[in-house]
Amino acid sequence: MENTGIYSYLVQPYQVDFQQKINFTTLGNYLIQSAGIHAEERGFGLQQLLENKKAWFLTRLAIDIEQYPLQFEKIWIETWVSEVGDRFTTRNFNILNRNKEVIGGASSSWAMIDLTTRRPASLSNLIGNDYVDGNLACRVMQPEKVPSVSKDLAPTEQLTVKYSDLDTNSHVNSMRYMQWMLDLFPLELYQERHIGRFEINYAAETHYSDNVALYKEEVQPSEEFIIELKKEPAKTVCRGKVTFR
Amino acid sequence: MENTGIYSYLVQPYQVDFQQKINFTTLGNYLIQSAGIHAEERGFGLQQLLENKKAWFLTRLAIDIEQYPLQFEKIWIETWVSEVGDRFTTRNFNILNRNKEVIGGASSSWAMIDLTTRRPASLSNLIGNDYVDGNLACRVMQPEKVPSVSKDLAPTEQLTVKYSDLDTNSHVNSMRYMQWMLDLFPLELYQERHIGRFEINYAAETHYSDNVALYKEEVQPSEEFIIELKKEPAKTVCRGKVTFR
Repeated sequence: MENTGIYSYLVQPYQVDFQQKINFTTLGNYLIQSAGIHAEERGFGLQQLLENKKAWFLTRLAIDIEQYPLQFEKIWIETWVSEVGDRFTTRNFNILNRNKEVIGGASSSWAMIDLTTRRPASLSNLIGNDYVDGNLACRVMQPEKVPSVSKDLAPTEQLTVKYSDLDTNSHVNSMRYMQWMLDLFPLELYQERHIGRFEINYAAETHYSDNVALYKEEVQPSEEFIIELKKEPAKTVCRGKVTFR
Repeated sequence: MENTGIYSYLVQPYQVDFQQKINFTTLGNYLIQSAGIHAEERGFGLQQLLENKKAWFLTRLAIDIEQYPLQFEKIWIETWVSEVGDRFTTRNFNILNRNKEVIGGASSSWAMIDLTTRRPASLSNLIGNDYVDGNLACRVMQPEKVPSVSKDLAPTEQLTVKYSDLDTNSHVNSMRYMQWMLDLFPLELYQERHIGRFEINYAAETHYSDNVALYKEEVQPSEEFIIELKKEPAKTVCRGKVTFR
């Protein structure tokens, strides 16, 4: 089997925003779905892990996009594993338009969690070296550590975790955090510019009825923002860096 | 071409709730997507309507479900047009599990809107009678008018329309209203029971930054609820009736 897998999606009307551009959360879901199929095909997918009471856990994700697919457009996601360490593995992606021209890319970092102990599990021997290829070209830098917001910043928004926010582990779905971050920007900014890069670090889990405070700091006016989500009192849940172009 | 169309979906991990059951919003999206493909194949789909500056507008939807597909399960949606009037058309659905056993159904009412005038357009001559079949069996009664909540009821929740709530018409996505309604119920209710029927009537559109008040009235304890969404000051946006079993 090849190192890379490539999968197509047809962008549905309910997966786009008011400008008919694909939602970032949908794009993230396509990436994760592609990662899932690619891993499943090679013996280390979520279903296979669940049989051993383990699961994949997304720790970092960076998405770079130059051209947004619109509703009814076909899009291709190409993915491969570029590196495997003991605790983390890096998976890269190319995002291609219907003509298979690269319009963006993504890089992600994953850990494996032991669902019995709720602790990280070793990745050694899980992914055969046959499937790892560090030489394949990806335009996207590995996701880096996003800095904290300033200590004196007041929250921009506060919310409470609800039923529809939860995934199968009873934690907030990783794309929902992204959605909450996107909703901190005014519509005018989306009309004038577009997000060129979105980087997110996941640090802790949130549960039903948790209160979450969202802090947004403008690093470069209308261009670069750092967002931090904290559980009360002050535990970081995740951090995002959003770059508008 | 046959009257009915049947389309399959594979339920993704991001499309299920904390009990691994398909989200009602995902189910709704699958229904709408199936309706879209079915209509497109027969010459009256959204893309074809958009060329004439018209669009489909969902006015009522009722979903009945006995068995919830879980993550990674295949599901089939069968759909057909059962009636066409001048202003409204009824489209029915069967929901089938991977073995093509009926596990639920849905019925929907649609109007066509003229995007230039923002007024309803006549459906005469749009859908050829060849494609209409009132004799096909659907287990679901046509969606009825959901009553208003009591006048003296205080809002259960209030929220403001955000970027991610919007669809391509810059209105709140019809499934987002459903999600808001689902989030009004405590997690315990979902653990003890499941939604057997969800009926929704759409009355008015909401836009970015609109304030929406959600009213929930318990008609039968832990079993039947009426929900009404109002824009300030008191304009009904939509009404839902949720039946737990």
